[in-house]
Order: sequence, then structure tokens, then C-alpha cells
Amino acid sequence: MHLHEVETIGRDALADLQVRALRATLERARRSPFYGRRLAESGLGPQDIRSPGDIRRLPVTTKDDLRAEYPFGLVTCPREELIRLHASSGTTGASTVVFHDRQDLDNWSDLVARCMYMVGMRPGDVFQNMTAYGLFTGGLGMHYGAERLGCLTVPAGPGNTQRQIKLIRDFGVTALHIIPSYALHFAGWLEREGIDPGELTPRIALIGAEPHTGEARSRIESLLDLKAYNSYGLSEMNGPGVAFECPEQQGMHLWEDAFLMEVVDPETLEPVPDGEPGELVLTTLQRHAMPILRYRTKDITRILPGDCACGRTHRRIDRITGRSDDMFIIKGVNIYPMQIERVLLGIPEVGQNYLIILDREQDIDQLRVKVEIKAEHYRDDPAAMAALHRHIIHRLRDELLVTPGLDLMPPRSLPEAQGKAQRVEDLRPR
Amino acid sequence: MHLHEVETIGRDALADLQVRALRATLERARRSPFYGRRLAESGLGPQDIRSPGDIRRLPVTTKDDLRAEYPFGLVTCPREELIRLHASSGTTGASTVVFHDRQDLDNWSDLVARCMYMVGMRPGDVFQNMTAYGLFTGGLGMHYGAERLGCLTVPAGPGNTQRQIKLIRDFGVTALHIIPSYALHFAGWLEREGIDPGELTPRIALIGAEPHTGEARSRIESLLDLKAYNSYGLSEMNGPGVAFECPEQQGMHLWEDAFLMEVVDPETLEPVPDGEPGELVLTTLQRHAMPILRYRTKDITRILPGDCACGRTHRRIDRITGRSDDMFIIKGVNIYPMQIERVLLGIPEVGQNYLIILDREQDIDQLRVKVEIKAEHYRDDPAAMAALHRHIIHRLRDELLVTPGLDLMPPRSLPEAQGKAQRVEDLRPR
Ligand SMILES: [Zn+2]
Ligand SMILES: [Zn+2]
Repeated sequence: MHLHEVETIGRDALADLQVRALRATLERARRSPFYGRRLAESGLGPQDIRSPGDIRRLPVTTKDDLRAEYPFGLVTCPREELIRLHASSGTTGASTVVFHDRQDLDNWSDLVARCMYMVGMRPGDVFQNMTAYGLFTGGLGMHYGAERLGCLTVPAGPGNTQRQIKLIRDFGVTALHIIPSYALHFAGWLEREGIDPGELTPRIALIGAEPHTGEARSRIESLLDLKAYNSYGLSEMNGPGVAFECPEQQGMHLWEDAFLMEVVDPETLEPVPDGEPGELVLTTLQRHAMPILRYRTKDITRILPGDCACGRTHRRIDRITGRSDDMFIIKGVNIYPMQIERVLLGIPEVGQNYLIILDREQDIDQLRVKVEIKAEHYRDDPAAMAALHRHIIHRLRDELLVTPGLDLMPPRSLPEAQGKAQRVEDLRPR
Repeated sequence: MHLHEVETIGRDALADLQVRALRATLERARRSPFYGRRLAESGLGPQDIRSPGDIRRLPVTTKDDLRAEYPFGLVTCPREELIRLHASSGTTGASTVVFHDRQDLDNWSDLVARCMYMVGMRPGDVFQNMTAYGLFTGGLGMHYGAERLGCLTVPAGPGNTQRQIKLIRDFGVTALHIIPSYALHFAGWLEREGIDPGELTPRIALIGAEPHTGEARSRIESLLDLKAYNSYGLSEMNGPGVAFECPEQQGMHLWEDAFLMEVVDPETLEPVPDGEPGELVLTTLQRHAMPILRYRTKDITRILPGDCACGRTHRRIDRITGRSDDMFIIKGVNIYPMQIERVLLGIPEVGQNYLIILDREQDIDQLRVKVEIKAEHYRDDPAAMAALHRHIIHRLRDELLVTPGLDLMPPRSLPEAQGKAQRVEDLRPR
């Protein structure tokens, strides 16, 4: 496994490659019932694609489309060619599913292996996969990538911190896949047990599966004494392996040979300029069994302008700052929960947990933030506490442009985030 | 994937193949620290192997050996060639681990795919893997085998019965991998929900990971309206894919091109005649990264004499009737818990759950069995209950040669077995 030459391809050659891949994708997609109709209605055929931007002549595909076409409406091939599915795990309500054939799994494994290689993983590395296997795409996705790369893979699965530590020690684990909230929990556990992370062997953590801030990442890096790299993916686009940080840690290279990227205004669906936040819309360029065209990810990010010092030409996206459907509006200002996390975790006195409370008073939405203060800073000194309160309020107002309510809470008084963090309590009447 | 011609190889040709494979295995094994010493001590070299039986010139390998050599003492290759490990999951006490290189995983996947092909699974089948992934070898082992064969694999993982049913229905699942105790739980759930298993699509269940009786299998088949095939494996020998039932359902063909089989007296370690019960001892014939020679599985079985009607020449083992270390002795008679299950589940009035209680009175070990009676048979009629009590006692005595204590219990009064059944309560003082 070497740095794939496609990662440093010139932009013009990349556009040519995308045009060819897009034509092939349309050719395959129209074999499915759903895109057969969509493409016929739009009148767009493979031969009409002359530049990557021509994809905009098609309507977007939404999660509701996937739900309506569940289970087989987007499948392009005979059933006996399918070898994997990943489905949303709910038992009630509408479901979504993604199918893969053998070549899809091969391509997916390659993309994940490229991410791992990019951040320095090599054969001889020992990779502990600390996330759930099964229908969740993060577990099997990273597992296949690490085996493709040739790392010794420890399929630990999630939870059982004591066992995780034993495995890390016994096998000299050098790289972890861990979700950010569990990484923070894990670091807290090490501290309580008096284990110095500097004595542990991991030097790399792949963190993804839930949006998190740069501040959360910095904490993970310093608490665990390793480098943590941000991973972006979603099950509709395979899972992990869509975009990943390089060693520069300045944004995530999105693999543009495998995915065509747009960033659009969530209201108008018009493209926003590079550098401006918008909703990420993705088109698969390699998928066989189930291509998806112009999928609205709901994830808010922006394209980072300029070249990356690492030399890769694939454009970078910023970390996900929210979901277009978890935005809320306070006093006319659009606010994403991730903005609040970014502020809070950048303040040294603030502990691991916080809660965002949305309520309504006299028909006006109100924002209140409860935040744990670290033990060494939570003191019986009203003046000091008032100063800290003012400081946090100022920082929040600078970021949000509104002034929220704020409660300073004693250490360990808020629910600890395990798994995907649930940090927002919405008490507004429906 | 076709029926591999090695499955119908003549016995002489198989012996030749085993000799060659055994020589290569010894050649590799002696690169590991442990077998380097063992083989030097025994003076046995690859060139000394002239028949498969020559392996008996080596001492057996035990779980204690694996524990003492944990983690790397049996590894034959450089670390960077390893790509998978499976370790026992305990956090206290001694651990064991098995390492695989890429060819080991390929061979393992082939063996599992052969099992699946043997019982009629083909590309186009939809395979729901209802066991745990991660360090447990059953999940990833079956997953890789099904993908190798080309079945559409649903990585459901264990538990959440309602979701399992939804996946089965939504994707037209035709084959399940499920552990026997969960299969019985699952059947009970269907019955309570009023779901007719005849309306569900699965026609094949692969059941393994815990020993069970033919009677438990029959119940699973009739309750779920499918054919259930017994799977045998253990993590030291990869996991699943060691031995598997063919459509005849008369014993499990042990893949003798991949494993050299002995059945020995657990006390003397001398071979027992075909047809006689003893402890299964296995030698890997294909493993690269970590061959194991003459491994004491602790599993009690017997070689079934005679040819199988299916035409495969690989010898069959009977279902596992116990563990050499869970045998207990009552009034001088050797008894395995599986013998008791076999009797109980063959009695139509008996429900799903039972408990075997071992106690000691005046220095003599006592056996007592508590058994749930099905609702329709548990009546307020002392004479009928006494007759049923006598009937069960007779059946147990016929099998065990001793008369245990027996309590008939109301339905649902005993703990329901979930996961690996824990049916023995040992109250004897240590
Ligand atoms: Zn870069
Ligand atoms: Zn047979």
C-alpha cells in the first residue's frame, strides 16, 4: 500500500476522471427503479456530462427518498451480486439501507486504508477497533481498511474500559479507532486509575462517528498523549473513508476520486463560495450496487480554500459544525450546538460535560447552558466564581452573537456522555 | 464456489495430503519459541513424519500452555505479517490469544464457506449473522465465510429480537447464524407475538457456539420451521469451520485437510476406538502464523463409524456431549450435563428451562434437577403430576444409571438462558 498517485493528481486531470466516473455512475444508476425514473424525468444522460458541475442538472436525493425507496429501489444489480448491507437500526419508523457488491467493499476498504496510510499507519502497526461492529458502518468499515493496509487488527468492540487497556498493553497497540465522547471517558478513567497515558503505546487515534470540535480533539490528544485525526463519513456514502485529516490537521481531504462534492445553501440549494459554510452534498463516483446522486448529507461544513502543505490535491472540508436540521434560532441568529461546544472546550476551567437547554418563554426561544467546572476551579469563592461566569459568558457571546443563560455546575453533576453525545435538551412546546 | 474436490478425496490420498501438510506445519511451528523448544526436546522433525499417526510422538498442547506462552510464544512469523487476533476476553486471570496472517484468514473463510455451501447456501441467499462480532470468533468467522461464498450478509449482531424480525422480513433473509439458546428464546418470542414462523423466509439456521443436544436442535427446527445445522469450532482452531453437519444431519464432517483429528481417553491420552467417546485433540494443518499441535480441546465426542450417505470422505464427529472438565461423578458414574439436557428436551411435557444442582451431603455428591413444565401440562392434579414426575425420573435413570432428585417447576419459574446457557449450579464446598 503506497500513497496512491490519485491523491496528488492535478485538478484538471481530476476533473476528467470525475467526468468519466460520473458518466459510468449515471449509466449504472439508471438501472435502478428510482434513478431510472429520476434520470428519465430530468432528461440527463451519461453523454450530457461534460464537466463535474453538470451534476447540478439533477435534483438532490434526500433521506426521505431513501426511506420511500426502501429496501431495493436504488439497487442496480441482480440480488445475487450483493454481499453486504448496512441498515439504519430502528425498529419503528422508516428505515434506510445501503447495499454493496464485492467491488464496492473492495473500493471502500481501499478508501479507508488510504486514510490510515495518510496518517502514518503501516503494516506492523497494531490497530484496536474500539467501536461497535454490526450494522454500524464504523466498525466493519475501519476493520476492513486496517486489514487491507496490513495492520494487526484487534476487534475489541466498544466499552469495557478495563479490557481495552489490557488489550492495548498486552499487544502493544499503536493505533486506536474510538469515538470522541468515549475517548474523553477513557481518558477520565485512566486518570482515576492513576495510569499515565505516556506509558501506553498508542500514538494515533482515529476519531469520528460524531461531530466534535477542534477543542475536543486537542483535549483527547493531550489527555491520551497521541495524535488524533478526524474522520468523516456517513453510512449512505459507505461509512468511514469519505474525508480524513492528513498530518497537517488542517481540515479533512475529501477523496474526490470517489465522491463528487458540493457545498450548498440549505435553503436555496445554490452553491456557496469556497470558505463559506453550507450543507455538504455528495455523489458516489465508484459505487456499483447502489450509486447515490447528489445526496443531502445535512452536515454543515465549508470547503477550506487554498492548497494543503501535504501536497494532496483533493480539497479539504472543515470539521462538521452542525447538522442543517439541528440548527436553532435565538433572537434571529442561527446557532449550531457545535459552536457552543467549541467555545466551552476551549476554556481550561471547563470540565468534560455540558448541557444545552432550549426553552420558550412568552413565545420567545431561550438558550441556557449548564457547564461543569473542573474540581480544581470549582471553589467556595463567590468573587472568583462570578469572574469565571463573566468570562464564559463573554466567550459565548463573542461566538454566538447572543447572550445565553449560564449555570456553572460542580464537577460530575451532569450526565456523562457515553456513545453519541446527547447534549441538547429541547423543552420547547411542539 | 463449488463443492471442493478435497471433500470427497480417497482416504489414502487424504493421508498423503495430511502427511505433507503436517511436515510443513512442523517446519513452520518450530520457528516459534514454544514449538522450537518442544520439537527440539522431542527430537521430532518434519522428515520423521511418515504417517498422520506419527504426530503422537509429540506431547499434547493444553490451554495452560497457551496461557503460559501468552501473547507471542506460538507465533512463527514477523509481527508485520499478522493481520488479526482473537483473544479470550477476561480482564483477570490468564488469557489466550490466536494470531492470523492474511493466508490464515483466507483459509478460514474458505473453510466456513465450505460449511455453508454444504448445507445449501448459495450466492443469492441472504444471511443474517445474529451473533456477536468482535473478539468472539463466531461473528467475524461466519461473516467472512458468507461473504466469501457470495451471500448477502446482514451483520445484525446479537439481541434486539424485534429488530432481528424486521431485518428478516425486510430483506427476505434465507439463512441465520444463531446460538441455540437464543434460537429457543427467539422462537418463544415469535409465539408470544403471534408470528407464524412458516411466514418467515429463513430455511436454514447455522447453530453452534454452545453445545446442545439433538433434541434441542429438533425443537429449534420445528419451532422456527427450518433446517438447523450443527457447527463445531473453537477459537484456538480459528473458530467456526472446524466441523459441520451435512444435509444428512448424522454427525459433523471434520475438515481433515485442515485439521488432524484424534479422539483420546482424557485420563490416559491413549486413542479410543472409533465410536467410543473421548476428548477431541486437534492439530492445525493449514495455519501459518500460529500452528497448534495436538491441542486438547476438552470437548467430549466420538468418531462416527462408517461412511456418510452424502459422499464426503472426511470423518464425522458426534455432537459434543460435554467438556472433559465439566464432567461430574455421582455414585461412581461419570455424568455430563448434556446427557441430562438430552433426556429433558426429549420429553414433550418439559419446557425450555432446567437447572442442574450439584450439592454434597455427608461427603457424598448429590444431583438434583429442576425442570420447568409447559403451561398446558402443569396442572393442579397431584396424581397427574406424580405420574409425570415418575416418567421423567425413569428416563433420567435410564440415561444416567443413577437416580437424581427431581423438582417439577411451574412455567417461567427458572432463569431463562440467554447467550451461553449456564444450567449447572455447583453448591459443593471447595
Ligand atoms: Zn493535507
Ligand atoms: Zn455427509
